[in-house]
Amino acid sequence: MKKTIAVLPGDGIGPEVTDAAVKVLQSIAMRYGHTFHLKHAAIGGTAVDQFDNPLPQQTIDVCDASDAILLGAVGGTKWDSNPAHLRPEKGLLNIRKHFDLFANIRPVKAVPALLDSSPLKEEVAKEVDMVIVRELTSGLYFGEPKRRSEKSAVDTLVYTREEIERIVNQAFEIARTRRGKVTSVDKANVLETSKLWREVVEERRKAYPDIEVEHMLVDSAAMKLITDPRAFDVVVTENMFGDILSDEASVITGSLGMLPSASIRSDGFGLYEPVHGSAPDIAGQNKANPSAAILSAAMMLKHSFGLHTEAAAIEKAVMGVLEDGYCTGDLAGEGKRVVSTDRFVTKVVEELEREFVSEHIMYSYV
Amino acid sequence: MKKTIAVLPGDGIGPEVTDAAVKVLQSIAMRYGHTFHLKHAAIGGTAVDQFDNPLPQQTIDVCDASDAILLGAVGGTKWDSNPAHLRPEKGLLNIRKHFDLFANIRPVKAVPALLDSSPLKEEVAKEVDMVIVRELTSGLYFGEPKRRSEKSAVDTLVYTREEIERIVNQAFEIARTRRGKVTSVDKANVLETSKLWREVVEERRKAYPDIEVEHMLVDSAAMKLITDPRAFDVVVTENMFGDILSDEASVITGSLGMLPSASIRSDGFGLYEPVHGSAPDIAGQNKANPSAAILSAAMMLKHSFGLHTEAAAIEKAVMGVLEDGYCTGDLAGEGKRVVSTDRFVTKVVEELEREFVSEHIMYSYV
Ligand SMILES: [Mg+2]
Ligand SMILES: [Mg+2]
Repeated sequence: MKKTIAVLPGDGIGPEVTDAAVKVLQSIAMRYGHTFHLKHAAIGGTAVDQFDNPLPQQTIDVCDASDAILLGAVGGTKWDSNPAHLRPEKGLLNIRKHFDLFANIRPVKAVPALLDSSPLKEEVAKEVDMVIVRELTSGLYFGEPKRRSEKSAVDTLVYTREEIERIVNQAFEIARTRRGKVTSVDKANVLETSKLWREVVEERRKAYPDIEVEHMLVDSAAMKLITDPRAFDVVVTENMFGDILSDEASVITGSLGMLPSASIRSDGFGLYEPVHGSAPDIAGQNKANPSAAILSAAMMLKHSFGLHTEAAAIEKAVMGVLEDGYCTGDLAGEGKRVVSTDRFVTKVVEELEREFVSEHIMYSYV
Repeated sequence: MKKTIAVLPGDGIGPEVTDAAVKVLQSIAMRYGHTFHLKHAAIGGTAVDQFDNPLPQQTIDVCDASDAILLGAVGGTKWDSNPAHLRPEKGLLNIRKHFDLFANIRPVKAVPALLDSSPLKEEVAKEVDMVIVRELTSGLYFGEPKRRSEKSAVDTLVYTREEIERIVNQAFEIARTRRGKVTSVDKANVLETSKLWREVVEERRKAYPDIEVEHMLVDSAAMKLITDPRAFDVVVTENMFGDILSDEASVITGSLGMLPSASIRSDGFGLYEPVHGSAPDIAGQNKANPSAAILSAAMMLKHSFGLHTEAAAIEKAVMGVLEDGYCTGDLAGEGKRVVSTDRFVTKVVEELEREFVSEHIMYSYV
């Protein structure tokens, strides 16, 4: 398979973790016979410094000519006092908008080797394996009118049937590749938009008779994410509820620094990035945890390129290295061997090679 | 002190737990020399059955002539298919609206004897002691326009400066009786209503220089409630965020069945009720946990009547009985002695008397 990938390292630890993900992609390309053309471009604060624009036109052009985007992280105190249009985060908002990346996908999976650092009891957090599918380009954060006077303020929550249909379809498609259950979260007992949302889910489920569907109110979902997180497979919800619930879910397994994410559209094009931020305090010190960036690259292989075997190999390799006790400083703990970013990536690549070889030995016996 | 209390038992276990709270109030009245006139009235499904109205006029009249309202619970499958205006919950919504009870106050306090049943690790959940102050009568759930067509739907989030001022003032006043910290939760990086909210908090804090103030985005708050819940003292937020966060917070200590709540207005008038529902499956079996109703009565003494000593005595008595190992069936576990609702209340009253006597013996030595 031949694919072009836009690589946008961004700010802080962005470049280091993106480099790590690229090394893993190169190893995958070599072993599995793919060609990945990697085209680097600037975004965020780095782009503001170089081009006075957090999302320069040449970056858009590079992305336009690519099959997917791999992003590191944006932001840093250096640009905190910039005017709104020169803030690093604006680059991220603009790129999502420009490419109409309406589906934000955030998997949360318990890592056995890291359950120690979960705030939840091990028996509650273990085996958690869910994906939150959040509508990203509509709802209360974008609806008009949006205004403020001396005496009052207004925001507007609007959803069209089409906006709901496309995100709900995404959730059903993802559920088909997993345990086949969709939990649709709304506030249908109070909100008109939620009533429409629920109606669309009921309509769309007819096309997915193999998928189990449940409706849950957002306040109940906020409780159940803590009391029984294993009950979730695919969660689909509107923008603001998804903002709150995906962040809530990100801390339950204790592996926040490990979480990848995707923002995609219906044709498979998408942007892949770690959930963690740019961590400027440890930037350039070869100690950032590259797992989330590497797992984001795996999501790209799966969602944008349909390379499920390769994606699974990467996930297995990262988990293998962690289970061997290796980790970066953020996960330091009893019985752990703290290594540099570079060393961690080398370990992941070695693990990938070992997997690949043992698979092929097995084949030759069959 | 002479006070009139409207007692609205409601549905399911409502009558049993309200009876329990009344017994405790009677014990307090006797020991501390107060007179509480108790006037019972119907609400919820029970009121629908009797009067074809979940909030009959005679109930409003009783409440109007009272200094505070003690409520059990409303709702049950029996009325689930009723039209909207004959649903039990409508009684609760209407009474809040009729009396303009804009401040919903939900304390969440870890009970050492119950930490076993928390989904959080003991070291995370222990010593949690926070109060969530939620704006209850405005925001996205009530704002107009609110409409739906075949193709789209709209809800509107509106806040006036006055609506924000009065709830923020409540939070500051409550913080003064506690550890002196207010966390104001909003989404000021995106919402106009949140920008106004933050502006009002910044203005009002000038009148409370003794109170520490922090602003937190709602998605960060949803994370921190799990990773570091002890960091919160008083949380103040708008209606929808408060709905989600207060339910999230209610499960972190494992004592959901124990949580009281208040819905009050600025003059001290208020409605006090358990957070738990009407639990029709165990109604009338003398096994409901009356703690939340009893603690709601304690909140009434504190917030509506200013009887802080008496409120503290009730809280201490309930915790004492739990620490002695007594509990109702919902909290059954190793080393626990499961007792009936009646027996539990008797234990609480005995504990209250013991406290009272030992306090007075101490006084006579002084
Ligand atoms: Mg967020
Ligand atoms: Mg709720």
